[in-house]
Order: sequence, then structure tokens, then C-alpha cells
Amino acid sequence: MLNYTIYPIGTIEKSSEKTVLRIYDKYLEGLSKIEEFSHLICYFWFDRNDTVEGRSRLKVHPRKDPDIPLHGVFATRSPLRPNLIGMSICRIISIRDGMIEVDRTDALHDTPIIDIKPYIPKSDAVPDAGVPNWIHKPWPKK
Amino acid sequence: MLNYTIYPIGTIEKSSEKTVLRIYDKYLEGLSKIEEFSHLICYFWFDRNDTVEGRSRLKVHPRKDPDIPLHGVFATRSPLRPNLIGMSICRIISIRDGMIEVDRTDALHDTPIIDIKPYIPKSDAVPDAGVPNWIHKPWPKK
Repeated sequence: MLNYTIYPIGTIEKSSEKTVLRIYDKYLEGLSKIEEFSHLICYFWFDRNDTVEGRSRLKVHPRKDPDIPLHGVFATRSPLRPNLIGMSICRIISIRDGMIEVDRTDALHDTPIIDIKPYIPKSDAVPDAGVPNWIHKPWPKK
Repeated sequence: MLNYTIYPIGTIEKSSEKTVLRIYDKYLEGLSKIEEFSHLICYFWFDRNDTVEGRSRLKVHPRKDPDIPLHGVFATRSPLRPNLIGMSICRIISIRDGMIEVDRTDALHDTPIIDIKPYIPKSDAVPDAGVPNWIHKPWPKK
């Protein structure tokens, strides 16, 4: 079956104090001038779910909330999906030696980073996009 | 070297008249209820650049415009990058049998689709994100 290969370019380091995108030395040059932007898009790989089962689920309850009906995974941001791509939009706090401190990410500590792009409001911001009501529901307690 | 595998979930069909995301039958169930959203995020693979050379360039002139200084690929939306992930935010026009007609995409005809997510303004829209001046420059003539 036709497929493509992803090589991690770095790793997410998360502590209670800060969130850092650590880019491997090999790819450092690719960050040149990223400080021109206030925000970036971080793409990562949900590596904990990289199993046949994790990649074959096509329907889930969004947020694992049984009160929200089953949705196709492509209609959710679930970390279970055929290709385990995750995305966070992050504000850049500081950059030094391939360590990008950012305000936040949904990813877990030690998650592989697979791409970074600059955030460009002209193409990326659609403030009035329509969403269903469950998006506004509080998340279930853990 | 550690790596991950991407399997295409569909293909982009582009003509002068319309742009359609055709999702393979195997993944159709994953689209369930996506019509609740007005916009989706389409992730695709820049398959024309899937060569050692295409993936090893770390600096480019944005938009191939020699008047804009070299930037790291992670500070651009260049289709040359270590992992060939592209992203378009699309307005959904209609959905039928795994054919999602959308308003637009930057991808070329016959480009593999690798993921689809719903667009959620609360996390995805940052209208006031800062960008450098070259973003506002007209694109060079082809």
C-alpha cells in the first residue's frame, strides 16, 4: 500500500513551568527568521496511539464524553485517527538554540514534533466559522 | 532512524470548476457528522517533492521571490520541507458519498490527503497574530 515516511524534527518538553519545542540540531537552520512571527503552528505525532487499533478507529465520542453522540474521527480532534497528526497553535515566548518556548500545546510531554509552520491570519484565521453546540460544552471532569 | 508511516486517506480533485476532496471508501465512516462544521482543515502530502533533495532544503526564498531574504523552511509555508505536510483551511460547500466539495485549496490536482479535522475558531483563529511585512507583499508574477 502506498505510504509516506515522517521523520521527527524535534520533541515537546512540557513541565508544570513551561512548554518547550526542542528542535534537533540537524534541523536548526530551518528555524531561521521564525521570530518574525508571533505565533506558529506545531504539528506533532500522537505516538502513544501508533498501533493498529489506535489507527483503525473511525468513530469516537468527542472528548470521550458519552453524552456527545459518536462522530467520525475527521469531525473531531481526537488523538485516535488513521494518521496520527496533531496540531497546536502556539504563541512564541522565546527562541534560543533550537529551544522554542511557547505558551501552550495540547500534546503530552515527550511527543515527537513533525513540522512547524508560521501562523498567518490571512489564511489561517476564520473567526466566524460555524461549529456545533457541543464545542461550547464544558469538558467532562477527568 | 525512528520514523512514522502516513497512509493517504483520499485525494484532491481540482478542476477549473471545482475542488473536491475525495475520501477513500475505507475511511468514509470517519466523515460522519463533519457537516456540523462550516470549515475543515485539510492536510495533504506534497508528493511531488518527496525526494531526498526536496526534503533536505532547510532555507528558501518565501514564494520563490528572490527579493525576500532566505528564511528557514519552518518560517515559511514552502512545499519543500523535511516532512511534506501541507495544510489548507477550506469552507465546505457540499458532501456526498465521500466527495467533499470545498471552496479552495493550495494543493495541486491529484495530491494525497492525509488527514481532515474540523476547524474550531476558539483554538484555531488568532486574527491578530503578528507577521512580517513580506506577508503583505503581492506574489511575484509566474
